[in-house]
Amino acid sequence: MDTSTRRGRPRSESADARILDAAGELLLERGYDRFSVDEVATRAGVAKTTLYRRWPTKDHLIVAVVARIQDAVPVTYSGDVRADLIGYLNAIAGGLDRMRRVGRPTSAGETSAGLVAEVVAAAARHADVAAAVHAMFARRNALVLALLQQARESGELRAEADPEVLFDQLAGALYYRLLVTGHPLDAAYVERLVTGALDGVAS
Amino acid sequence: MDTSTRRGRPRSESADARILDAAGELLLERGYDRFSVDEVATRAGVAKTTLYRRWPTKDHLIVAVVARIQDAVPVTYSGDVRADLIGYLNAIAGGLDRMRRVGRPTSAGETSAGLVAEVVAAAARHADVAAAVHAMFARRNALVLALLQQARESGELRAEADPEVLFDQLAGALYYRLLVTGHPLDAAYVERLVTGALDGVAS
Repeated sequence: MDTSTRRGRPRSESADARILDAAGELLLERGYDRFSVDEVATRAGVAKTTLYRRWPTKDHLIVAVVARIQDAVPVTYSGDVRADLIGYLNAIAGGLDRMRRVGRPTSAGETSAGLVAEVVAAAARHADVAAAVHAMFARRNALVLALLQQARESGELRAEADPEVLFDQLAGALYYRLLVTGHPLDAAYVERLVTGALDGVAS
Repeated sequence: MDTSTRRGRPRSESADARILDAAGELLLERGYDRFSVDEVATRAGVAKTTLYRRWPTKDHLIVAVVARIQDAVPVTYSGDVRADLIGYLNAIAGGLDRMRRVGRPTSAGETSAGLVAEVVAAAARHADVAAAVHAMFARRNALVLALLQQARESGELRAEADPEVLFDQLAGALYYRLLVTGHPLDAAYVERLVTGALDGVAS
C-alpha cells in the first residue's frame, strides 16, 4: 500500500466502511456462531489479509460492528436531562434487544442475552478483545458523562452529583436485566429507572 | 464431621452437598475451561449417572456452584439500610472479584470478567441454563427486595421508592463494571454507589 495514501487514510477508511457494512449484515443474518470472517471479506470485496490485518479475529470484528451500532445513537444535552436520559436509554435498550435476537428466530418471551453475552465472554477470554470492548465503552460513555456534567453545570443536577456512578446505575440496570436476571427492557421500565436514579429513594 | 448429622439428611442431599463441594474446589483450581464434570464425580465419590441426572451439563453444575457461593452471603435488615446495602454490595463485589480470578494466575490490574462472563454466555446459549440462572438470581434478589421493603416500611426509604429499580441500579452497576467497562469494584466505589442511589442527583 502507498504510504502517502495510508497517511491520508481515505483508501483504507473506505475499505473499513465496506467491511463493517458487510460484517453488520452478515451478523444480523447469521448470528454469532455462524458468522464467518472469510465470508465478510468476500462480500466486502477485500483481501482476507487486509481484513485480518485490521481485525485479527472474529471477536475483534464483531466488537467493531457493535461499536458502530452504538455510534449511531446520538448523545446531546437539550436542557432537559430527564428527557435526554430516557431517550438515550430507550435507544440503548432497543439496540440491546435487537442484538438479543440477532441470528435467531424471533419468539415471544425470548430472554436470551444473545450476541451481547458472546461479546462479554470473548472479552473475558482474550485480553486484547477486552481492551477493545473497554475502549469502545469508554469512548461512548464519555459522551454521556459530558451530557451529565452539562446538566450539573446548568443546575438540573445537584453540585455533588456523581455522573460516573449515575451512568453506571442507569446503563448497569439495563445490562443486568439483559445478562443476569432476564427481565424485560421496555419503555415503562426505562422511565421508572430514570425517575429512581434522578430522585433517589432516601426519606 | 458428625456422621449422625449427615445420616439425618436425605441421602440425595448429602450426595448433592459432596458433589457441590468437589465442584467448587475443582472450579477454583481449574477455572471454567478446564473444569471436568467426570472429575467432580470421581472426587465426590458418586456415580457419573447420579451427577448427570441432577445437573445435565457442566454449565448447570457451575451455575449451582455459583448459587451456593451467593447463598453464603447473609441478607438481613439491621435498621440502617445504608450500612446494610454497603455490606451486602461489598460482599457481592468480593465474590465477583474472586470469580474473576478463578483458575487463572493472579495478576495486578486483571480486568477479565472470567467465570461470570462464561456463566452469562452459557445462559445466552441454552434456555435451560438461562432458566437456572434467572431462578437463582430471583431467589437471591427476593431477599434483598424484602430488606428494601422493610426499610421503606420503617420510613428509612420514601413511600414511593421502587425497590426493584433500586436493586437493579446497585447490582447492575457492579456487573456492568465487571462485564462491560472493566472498571474496578472496590469499597470506595461501593460507598459512592450506595450514596448516589439513595440520595439521587436531581436538584
